[in-house]
Amino acid sequence: MWLVGARGSVATTAISGLLAMRSGLAGPDGCVTERLDVAPGVLPGWDELVVGGHDLVDTPLEKKAEQLTAGGLLPAGLLPAIRDGLRAVEADLRPVPSGRTQAEAAARMADDLREFRTRHGLSAVVVINVSSTEPPTADAPEHHDLDALVAAMDEPGREVLPGSSLAAFAAVSAGCPFVDFTPSTGIRLPALTEFARRQGLPYAGSDGKTGETLLRSVLAPMFAARALKVRSWSGTNLLGGGDGATLADPVKAAGKLESKARGLAALLGDDVVAPLHIDHVPDLGEQKTAWDHVSFEGFLGARMTLQFTWTGYDSALAAPLVLDLARLTAAAYRAGETGPLGQLAFFFKDPVGTGEHRFAEQARVLAEWASSLGRQK
Amino acid sequence: MWLVGARGSVATTAISGLLAMRSGLAGPDGCVTERLDVAPGVLPGWDELVVGGHDLVDTPLEKKAEQLTAGGLLPAGLLPAIRDGLRAVEADLRPVPSGRTQAEAAARMADDLREFRTRHGLSAVVVINVSSTEPPTADAPEHHDLDALVAAMDEPGREVLPGSSLAAFAAVSAGCPFVDFTPSTGIRLPALTEFARRQGLPYAGSDGKTGETLLRSVLAPMFAARALKVRSWSGTNLLGGGDGATLADPVKAAGKLESKARGLAALLGDDVVAPLHIDHVPDLGEQKTAWDHVSFEGFLGARMTLQFTWTGYDSALAAPLVLDLARLTAAAYRAGETGPLGQLAFFFKDPVGTGEHRFAEQARVLAEWASSLGRQK
Amino acid sequence: MWLVGARGSVATTAISGLLAMRSGLAGPDGCVTERLDVAPGVLPGWDELVVGGHDLVDTPLEKKAEQLTAGGLLPAGLLPAIRDGLRAVEADLRPVPSGRTQAEAAARMADDLREFRTRHGLSAVVVINVSSTEPPTADAPEHHDLDALVAAMDEPGREVLPGSSLAAFAAVSAGCPFVDFTPSTGIRLPALTEFARRQGLPYAGSDGKTGETLLRSVLAPMFAARALKVRSWSGTNLLGGGDGATLADPVKAAGKLESKARGLAALLGDDVVAPLHIDHVPDLGEQKTAWDHVSFEGFLGARMTLQFTWTGYDSALAAPLVLDLARLTAAAYRAGETGPLGQLAFFFKDPVGTGEHRFAEQARVLAEWASSLGRQK
Amino acid sequence: MWLVGARGSVATTAISGLLAMRSGLAGPDGCVTERLDVAPGVLPGWDELVVGGHDLVDTPLEKKAEQLTAGGLLPAGLLPAIRDGLRAVEADLRPVPSGRTQAEAAARMADDLREFRTRHGLSAVVVINVSSTEPPTADAPEHHDLDALVAAMDEPGREVLPGSSLAAFAAVSAGCPFVDFTPSTGIRLPALTEFARRQGLPYAGSDGKTGETLLRSVLAPMFAARALKVRSWSGTNLLGGGDGATLADPVKAAGKLESKARGLAALLGDDVVAPLHIDHVPDLGEQKTAWDHVSFEGFLGARMTLQFTWTGYDSALAAPLVLDLARLTAAAYRAGETGPLGQLAFFFKDPVGTGEHRFAEQARVLAEWASSLGRQK
Repeated sequence: MWLVGARGSVATTAISGLLAMRSGLAGPDGCVTERLDVAPGVLPGWDELVVGGHDLVDTPLEKKAEQLTAGGLLPAGLLPAIRDGLRAVEADLRPVPSGRTQAEAAARMADDLREFRTRHGLSAVVVINVSSTEPPTADAPEHHDLDALVAAMDEPGREVLPGSSLAAFAAVSAGCPFVDFTPSTGIRLPALTEFARRQGLPYAGSDGKTGETLLRSVLAPMFAARALKVRSWSGTNLLGGGDGATLADPVKAAGKLESKARGLAALLGDDVVAPLHIDHVPDLGEQKTAWDHVSFEGFLGARMTLQFTWTGYDSALAAPLVLDLARLTAAAYRAGETGPLGQLAFFFKDPVGTGEHRFAEQARVLAEWASSLGRQK
Repeated sequence: MWLVGARGSVATTAISGLLAMRSGLAGPDGCVTERLDVAPGVLPGWDELVVGGHDLVDTPLEKKAEQLTAGGLLPAGLLPAIRDGLRAVEADLRPVPSGRTQAEAAARMADDLREFRTRHGLSAVVVINVSSTEPPTADAPEHHDLDALVAAMDEPGREVLPGSSLAAFAAVSAGCPFVDFTPSTGIRLPALTEFARRQGLPYAGSDGKTGETLLRSVLAPMFAARALKVRSWSGTNLLGGGDGATLADPVKAAGKLESKARGLAALLGDDVVAPLHIDHVPDLGEQKTAWDHVSFEGFLGARMTLQFTWTGYDSALAAPLVLDLARLTAAAYRAGETGPLGQLAFFFKDPVGTGEHRFAEQARVLAEWASSLGRQK
Repeated sequence: MWLVGARGSVATTAISGLLAMRSGLAGPDGCVTERLDVAPGVLPGWDELVVGGHDLVDTPLEKKAEQLTAGGLLPAGLLPAIRDGLRAVEADLRPVPSGRTQAEAAARMADDLREFRTRHGLSAVVVINVSSTEPPTADAPEHHDLDALVAAMDEPGREVLPGSSLAAFAAVSAGCPFVDFTPSTGIRLPALTEFARRQGLPYAGSDGKTGETLLRSVLAPMFAARALKVRSWSGTNLLGGGDGATLADPVKAAGKLESKARGLAALLGDDVVAPLHIDHVPDLGEQKTAWDHVSFEGFLGARMTLQFTWTGYDSALAAPLVLDLARLTAAAYRAGETGPLGQLAFFFKDPVGTGEHRFAEQARVLAEWASSLGRQK
Repeated sequence: MWLVGARGSVATTAISGLLAMRSGLAGPDGCVTERLDVAPGVLPGWDELVVGGHDLVDTPLEKKAEQLTAGGLLPAGLLPAIRDGLRAVEADLRPVPSGRTQAEAAARMADDLREFRTRHGLSAVVVINVSSTEPPTADAPEHHDLDALVAAMDEPGREVLPGSSLAAFAAVSAGCPFVDFTPSTGIRLPALTEFARRQGLPYAGSDGKTGETLLRSVLAPMFAARALKVRSWSGTNLLGGGDGATLADPVKAAGKLESKARGLAALLGDDVVAPLHIDHVPDLGEQKTAWDHVSFEGFLGARMTLQFTWTGYDSALAAPLVLDLARLTAAAYRAGETGPLGQLAFFFKDPVGTGEHRFAEQARVLAEWASSLGRQK
């Protein structure tokens, strides 16, 4: 598992939790792969996962883990038990390489991945993007043509790809499956999906589903199944922490808001009024709170409402899914799957490879797919 | 469709809505059967449904419909358009017959049903209990043995069966499928299910799922699918209207609370702390409001919460389901199905014939069953 | 009482309610003046209030009242009883006059006011602005100097004043007290307050406090009194109806948001993070819903939260306050009060004439002032 | 300050916080006395407060403080800095004395108080009851007559007084003012208030106002001031921790529920439907959550609702008030005040010495009284 954004809250929580599970100090609560019926040997064991990663910042993992402990996210008392493990992972973290051209930078990233794979003798390296949300990317002709893209990446100083897509390019170059846990562009450019296809690699994304959208994908199908007409679905998200600060920038929030809105429209149609806000509220720390107000119409036009408030630790919700995705994508890769893994829609707000947004159906598809892995294939 | 409790809010709303749909004044919002993929001719059309019923009270339907209009449940302006229809139904309502023995009373009820069927030339009469919730029934040996039950029903003055079960007995005697939309005992006594088996009749129930429990059956599977450990699930229900008054009596509320609790335990296990209250708040009128607070634990023991508030018109939620159940049970009967219709679990808090409480799975089972009706059989 | 925006929801509800109270069909629920201890004869009686007004649109009051009845705001059955009364008020409504210059337009408005006063032989005409919220006004030098303003108003085609301020100018010209129930600029320009001072007139405003801000002015002092440190106070407002549509325009919403924010800062200081949204959700009709999330810190840094949801009919909350303001401002005028009526801060989000935003203190000041009226003076 | 129940959560939090403030590790957030305008020297300083107490259990304070730290109530890292202070207080804690008669037990308690006062050379010892809530006390003739009470207390084996009242008797015997922070009977028996009167002692209570009732005393006056008619006010309280366990016993909860209900009736009248529940939800730990649903009626009968959810740490809310009460009651005693201190109603759900339940008015009365202390007297 190679994490892009390896020193952030989500990554640090995932790493700390993995170490805690290995030490028997924590159970796999929140880890979906533990509940799936998978043939033995298909999923890498918790002990087999090796973690490395890139990050722009250089805060030591230990320091970040201390901050998360103070913020109530990591249990008091855990740190001493995992300190050695954190240091071991620290040795596998690398700064994000730069270069005169994006081609050069990507080549160096790919080298980091290959070197990591070789050094640890890994059968697969799954690259997962958990870095900050980027603003939406402006379209460019080179995004639609792999050869043109490669040429543009050779132009000194030109940034034809956003950071997340450069990471995806590097992953594919190095023969690694790519997973995007953020709403950033990542691999979702025709030139890059073509590249993955040529390399015979699977990929998954986008935007881990951990709160408001999770509930929407559970509740919206209920209204549909009961023939209740949703008239409006309004939402407000209050975020502290790093993600909140990023999303306080309306330009960067745009990507997140679009990703969320696409899901609701897919579930309920386009004619639902759906104002949606993301606010940065620093004092919430690692917590996030979402309030949704759903107005719907039933028999004889009766007007009714549902409200919910979801209060959780963003990284505690995300981290086990990151570990699940590492295991499942590694298994898919080893089973020879290629292209978009629509079967992993269960994990994402804006899934690639499928139009299915209904949570229960996503769960069913995931369970069936996981139980088929390593069986009839 | 024969309604036990035909002058109550749910029944009056169902009847008024049926008449409104026939007049083109209302659409089938909230009617699930309109969304199912069913072969033509399998379900009785809205125009083919004939309504009769029993009730202890004698308030005219028109009067009750006026009250519901004042309470905001029926749209202002509807009444004049359906007045003739209400009067036609009125002519098919009968007082609940009494007798020297329960056998005698049941025989008279069965006569009412046969007479209704003959007079209108109906292929099936589905008896649906929408009367007030009864207190839980004390167990009796006769409930376990049909012959002993029949004998006990002949004893003058003895009330071996509660009202809902007497209605079920009468329905089965008259060869009518029985559906229980309330948490009352109804057909759920071994002697009665044996009776239905002998008569080759299908039956369904219990306790229509229209609010808090509906949401619970949607949300609880999400926590399970995401491996999030629910620690407590607390609920408070505020009810105005007739049902509220009935349930203000703790003895009568006991049945409802048990029915609700069984569902949550089936979904999440027995170790979830789940205090639950039903309060009578008359000023809410036909509305009900439920607040649920769910405390759960995720990765590394992170403590998180979900709260929801559901505000709706009880009868507007229930009435279309009553119409759906009439159509689906009639279709099941005509298709020769017998015994408990577990495929209708979608509609009930405490379904007979299945242990499945997960809403999405219930919806899938219903859809498959409905689309099979009248096809391969 | 002369209403600017006399055909809108608030105005129509106020007029309908006044007529209903006169007919004995409604009590004074929501009318604060009925609870105050005021000397006899000080406040005009409900029977003495005569209503006229200006509006840009020409929908008949009756038609508007029908719409409000359908929207659930006016009780079914009220309309027939007040139809004659509505027609009588209709005869006193005038289109908003225009002119080659703003001076001309203002002169015609003032004529309407004088003509109304004379025709009905009124001792006072209180002009109350209940029209749609305007966008914030750009500052101009003429706003600070009455003579310069009067000169600018004579320039053909120049619009030196926004509509609400033009109405205020006209009111003052005609010797009428002015009340602004909206967040628009109204009389709050130095040149206009100087004009009121010269004319010896009282005035009041701004922005009726009917929901979220009302609760904030009640709850924020609690946190202060208990030495609990509020860290963030986030709010979302969902509005249907006319006001919602107006405020869906971010430019127009700016005034409202500023008015709300000023209140919170006055109560809690500037360092509280306070994201605030107003969304237009048309299906809510005449209803509005506000959700607020308050995060605060107590002893030993304990982090705690308060959330509230307020669901109400905007016009039902506003209308009785409009009637109260008409009575109280008339009484103030007859008692010889001049300048900003800070004693009426109780009614406003952004009160003129005082910095007091604490609700309980505002209530106390109002009660004392009202009971002093017509006594020692 | 002598705490009855000195090893419980509230007491331990109060003691830990006092020590933290002395060490400069915490500010006085939540301490109301810091905001009052009091003459210098009137209130004992934080450094002057000496703490002792009685408890039935013998868990060391340090151990309890560790538990509260694990529960998130005390900040991680505080414990080492206050360990010495906790041990010093530990030396002043005593087991609750028993005796052959209640008179004997009371005499020993009073001895503990006198010994504590003498040993530390204190000008006043304020006894504050923060022990578990007792069930309501059955009335007895001796409760109404001090001489009869004293006689009954001499009967071996007879328990004429509940524990809280025995503590109050002992306090008064020893010449100490008594404060009841719980809803238990405490000093509220005619014989005991007579005893306090004879001894010339002040007393205060009952039942610290820290959550739902605090908000009710703030919000209910708003409805009244705005002439909005509250129709129902429904509440559910979810409590973890020790208080939750105590109140899971319906007999013990009765006292709390009565205390809460009295407040609402005093504010809004008796005709408000007000179902109220207290549930024990152990997984909430030191937190409590209250949900209230208020249904009210405004102009023209418009039906509207307010809901709120309050989530807080019970002991963090209570502890600073306990410290405040110690200071204020000591000051009242030193100023020669006697009898019920109605001026402290601000702190209590069910205040003695006044019928005033409106929070803002209570705050005003407290502020005036505090600023008068040590001035004109």
